[in-house]
Amino acid sequence: MVSKSLKEKFLNQKAVVLWMTRLSGSGKTTLAENLESELFSMGYLAQILDGDNMRSGINKNLGFSAEDREENIRRIAEISRLFLNCGLICINSFISPTNKIREMAKDVIGRDSFIEIFLNAPIEICEKRDVKGLYKAARAGKIKNFTGIDSPYEIPMHPDIEINTGELSVEESVEKCMRIIIERIRS
Amino acid sequence: MVSKSLKEKFLNQKAVVLWMTRLSGSGKTTLAENLESELFSMGYLAQILDGDNMRSGINKNLGFSAEDREENIRRIAEISRLFLNCGLICINSFISPTNKIREMAKDVIGRDSFIEIFLNAPIEICEKRDVKGLYKAARAGKIKNFTGIDSPYEIPMHPDIEINTGELSVEESVEKCMRIIIERIRS
Repeated sequence: MVSKSLKEKFLNQKAVVLWMTRLSGSGKTTLAENLESELFSMGYLAQILDGDNMRSGINKNLGFSAEDREENIRRIAEISRLFLNCGLICINSFISPTNKIREMAKDVIGRDSFIEIFLNAPIEICEKRDVKGLYKAARAGKIKNFTGIDSPYEIPMHPDIEINTGELSVEESVEKCMRIIIERIRS
Repeated sequence: MVSKSLKEKFLNQKAVVLWMTRLSGSGKTTLAENLESELFSMGYLAQILDGDNMRSGINKNLGFSAEDREENIRRIAEISRLFLNCGLICINSFISPTNKIREMAKDVIGRDSFIEIFLNAPIEICEKRDVKGLYKAARAGKIKNFTGIDSPYEIPMHPDIEINTGELSVEESVEKCMRIIIERIRS
């Protein structure tokens, strides 16, 4: 078998999972895409996992009940582990609102490979952006159990990286993340 | 976003899925591991997906009913698609006994990226090997719906590669596969 460490050497990187958490509209997707580009331009290979490619594919048979949300995150964590074992960097962008659900993901992935990035934008800013009109729908009662409105978001207690995307520009956010990430992925 | 084709260029390979199908004991795992090593020694990056890493991880909440077997293969196909989109080669090793289930995998993955490898070993040879003692258990009625014993295996109609692992050595099998694979992954 070609081991994880052989693949990491081949790719000249250490495999980690960058796990971004926070409300809809906090800038997770923007940051994920910019981090992937920045890493790629430096010669690192990463894969974004997010609602777009998970909910439309492997997790399209899951809804938004508490049970299904947990199964959603469990599968994502297991997929991340497969990518890790192939020497790759995963950039995961999911609301993942509770400590319990993030701890479960950490357990599956392995704590040493898990970099938690908390996008600390206030809900007012997230709601103001409302790119997909989801807050409006949630306020109108058309979406139930919407995180930040009628479903809680638990602040991470010890994130590895905290970014206030309400104050920092995208470039500043990427730079702040990269300072920490680069130390972890340099082989 | 960093596109699939940029990642393929970076890795200097075309992403494909090598899908190996046939009975337990037909040599799928051996061939998969040898193909991964051979590809890696030539500078190609691949990931094996098989019962070991699927059933113990993402698919550990699935059993062996017809419904669960289909969901098992569906998830594997969706995961393969994620690896493909990251420019990687997937080497999948699953009994995948019916045309229906293999067609479903092809549909999810995309026909152009799917290379079907049929390990055409007679059941007598598979059963004689019986590394895990599964045939013995199936003959004794301790395992139900065991493919080849009391559950059918449908011969693939148009496999891209057919290997009689009962006649060819591992080295010969790898060589025969590589002649076809190399044309498809050369960037």
